[in-house]
Amino acid sequence: MSIIRIAVLATGDELLNGSSADTNTRDIARRLEPAGYRLGTSVCVPDNPEQIVQALRLLIPQQDVIIATGGLGSTGDDLTAKTVAQALGRPLEENANALEMIRKRYAERGRELDPGVLRQALLPQKSVPLPNPEGSAPGFWLRQQNCDLFFLPGVPSEMRAMLCGSVIPALQRNKPGGSPRVKRSYGFFGLSEPQIEARIPYSDLPPYLRVGFSLDYPLVRVSLSAETENAENLLDTAEALLVEHLGDYLVARGDESMAGHVGQLLRRSGVSLSLAESCTGGLISQMLTSVAGASEFLERGAVTYADSAKTGWLGVDPQIIATYGAVSAECALAMARGLRHASGTDLSLAVTGIAGPGGGSDEKPLGTVFLALAAENVDQVRGYQFGGDRQKVQQMSACMALEWLRRFALESLS
Amino acid sequence: MSIIRIAVLATGDELLNGSSADTNTRDIARRLEPAGYRLGTSVCVPDNPEQIVQALRLLIPQQDVIIATGGLGSTGDDLTAKTVAQALGRPLEENANALEMIRKRYAERGRELDPGVLRQALLPQKSVPLPNPEGSAPGFWLRQQNCDLFFLPGVPSEMRAMLCGSVIPALQRNKPGGSPRVKRSYGFFGLSEPQIEARIPYSDLPPYLRVGFSLDYPLVRVSLSAETENAENLLDTAEALLVEHLGDYLVARGDESMAGHVGQLLRRSGVSLSLAESCTGGLISQMLTSVAGASEFLERGAVTYADSAKTGWLGVDPQIIATYGAVSAECALAMARGLRHASGTDLSLAVTGIAGPGGGSDEKPLGTVFLALAAENVDQVRGYQFGGDRQKVQQMSACMALEWLRRFALESLS
Repeated sequence: MSIIRIAVLATGDELLNGSSADTNTRDIARRLEPAGYRLGTSVCVPDNPEQIVQALRLLIPQQDVIIATGGLGSTGDDLTAKTVAQALGRPLEENANALEMIRKRYAERGRELDPGVLRQALLPQKSVPLPNPEGSAPGFWLRQQNCDLFFLPGVPSEMRAMLCGSVIPALQRNKPGGSPRVKRSYGFFGLSEPQIEARIPYSDLPPYLRVGFSLDYPLVRVSLSAETENAENLLDTAEALLVEHLGDYLVARGDESMAGHVGQLLRRSGVSLSLAESCTGGLISQMLTSVAGASEFLERGAVTYADSAKTGWLGVDPQIIATYGAVSAECALAMARGLRHASGTDLSLAVTGIAGPGGGSDEKPLGTVFLALAAENVDQVRGYQFGGDRQKVQQMSACMALEWLRRFALESLS
Repeated sequence: MSIIRIAVLATGDELLNGSSADTNTRDIARRLEPAGYRLGTSVCVPDNPEQIVQALRLLIPQQDVIIATGGLGSTGDDLTAKTVAQALGRPLEENANALEMIRKRYAERGRELDPGVLRQALLPQKSVPLPNPEGSAPGFWLRQQNCDLFFLPGVPSEMRAMLCGSVIPALQRNKPGGSPRVKRSYGFFGLSEPQIEARIPYSDLPPYLRVGFSLDYPLVRVSLSAETENAENLLDTAEALLVEHLGDYLVARGDESMAGHVGQLLRRSGVSLSLAESCTGGLISQMLTSVAGASEFLERGAVTYADSAKTGWLGVDPQIIATYGAVSAECALAMARGLRHASGTDLSLAVTGIAGPGGGSDEKPLGTVFLALAAENVDQVRGYQFGGDRQKVQQMSACMALEWLRRFALESLS
């Protein structure tokens, strides 16, 4: 195990005035662990030179590595470089390499440099600039009292790119880590956390294995981790047990989204798909198309909010809407069938419901949702009653639709 | 202004191993500010007695108030009370009031007490238990070296209930705060952070006003805050200046999303809308329908991924796709016009492009996106070249489409 003491120092008024939560600490830890490093502590301070200096003075003698985020950029509240220069007695100087990085980025984009941007090349003496592939402000690295300090921007995408591109490689060259913590995670849909916990065969799991739970609504994420030498073998054994007892509800692996998992199954199955969404308003299409490769199976989608769209594009008989209502099993099935006729896809899925906050009735309260699926020799429809606010009803409806697609794709593959 | 120094100490392995981000600090700050208190710093440590003790010893002499979260409960890793008892030399003792709170909660729910739960009544000497309306573990409050320490559970809903129910009222009785901080925020689209900063008339702004920036890609959020007695008046003045100099780019106020803002303008304008999305895959529809009330203006949307969908539902001439390609100004305009014909809406908007990672060419690289708008006597089309990965191209395309809708709605309203 690594004995390197690593701390995060997150700076930013927004982290302490209620505007934002510090997600960089989590993202840093997530990337350090597989490289064999552990995060020991994290401190947030506002964009206030005194507090930044105080935190640095406190952390430097205690830590081997400090990863500082925030306060790099070109606006007035970006004062990390200046503050660090003062705190460590290393005056700011124009860093030629940093200047080159900035010039190059602006030249590539055909944009003009202004003085505010050039200020980003002023770094404390004896700093090494760190390239920022996602933005204009370079980071920097310096060593003080045997502590390596890395200063990165607070913008998450820039921070992550520089952590993986510069910080972790520099650590690996200078301060090798311990056994990596090997971690695998699994997303389950359709069971609650206690239901999942009750099905995990704890007594059969290998020793030295940690099981963790987290909620990623409406999925429950379960993580398995180990840091012994044979960690991968332990995890193989544990994973096999998990799949044996819970495989039917497994809808994502690792960082995969449920839509990414289902999309991959659909691609493998060769099934072509069309979607008709009412209460989910395009959410299912958006989830599936946010992952590359959706064009291989998704032929089209319809967001048929108005009745005129349901009758027009999907050919739903107006009589069905008049008799049963647009939120009904009959309408959902007519939507799926009509869509399949219009699109000629192997599989068509339709969803109609009441996401709220308005539109509910005693007979059909908020959260009433119908899903329907049409395929060759298949007509399937079912009503659900989901709880929660508009966002939760939409999320739950979309995930249930993905679950139907997942089961259909699995059957086609078997 | 409050001169009370307040810190958060968040404990939990999950905060430092990549599982979760600490959202409690943000939630605490958000509730302290309107009561006239400010959070000065926040520290995260794992569930490790040594590190908890070290953090407490460091913070107690520096702070007037410490709000600690996490580590209260009945499972093995809940060790805050024991650790605090050791660190402060105040042995654990059964607290009669805490015991009563626990008994009462279990009796109300008809559940049986087990020894693990009763352990939650063991508190450091001279602690005052704090009732937990959302869970079984009481919190506690104690004073050490003139520092008030509040220990709350880490579960966000329990933490928030106890913060508002016990901590803030106790602060108000013992350490009155200053003027509440009044805050307003604004989202801008179409200008970078430096461009916005350059347009803010700083010299005309009232004194004692803070201006903050944060990125909510692709929006830039600007916040104005003041904590003087006439804060609302100052903010009115500053807001008027901001609107005068940047109003043309203002696309959201407060916590509002850009889609929420645009949706409201569309509702007010009475314009009916239809959407045809290719590379955004339903994202624009999803954004607009995630806010209640979209059914008042959105008649339908189409996710026309395949050419067959573009020719089928939108009536795009296959010759246009064959000649110019599906990603072209010609195709975008044909999509918008065909959609307007099919839907009969006042306004139709179409987007087609290459979100990547595949599908780019020298002539039409990744990020090439065409937007088109059709309305009565209006035909508008424009090509863009957006940077970034698939997600960023989709986000930027969707927000640019919302921007077109915003401008159209504003013109209809004027």
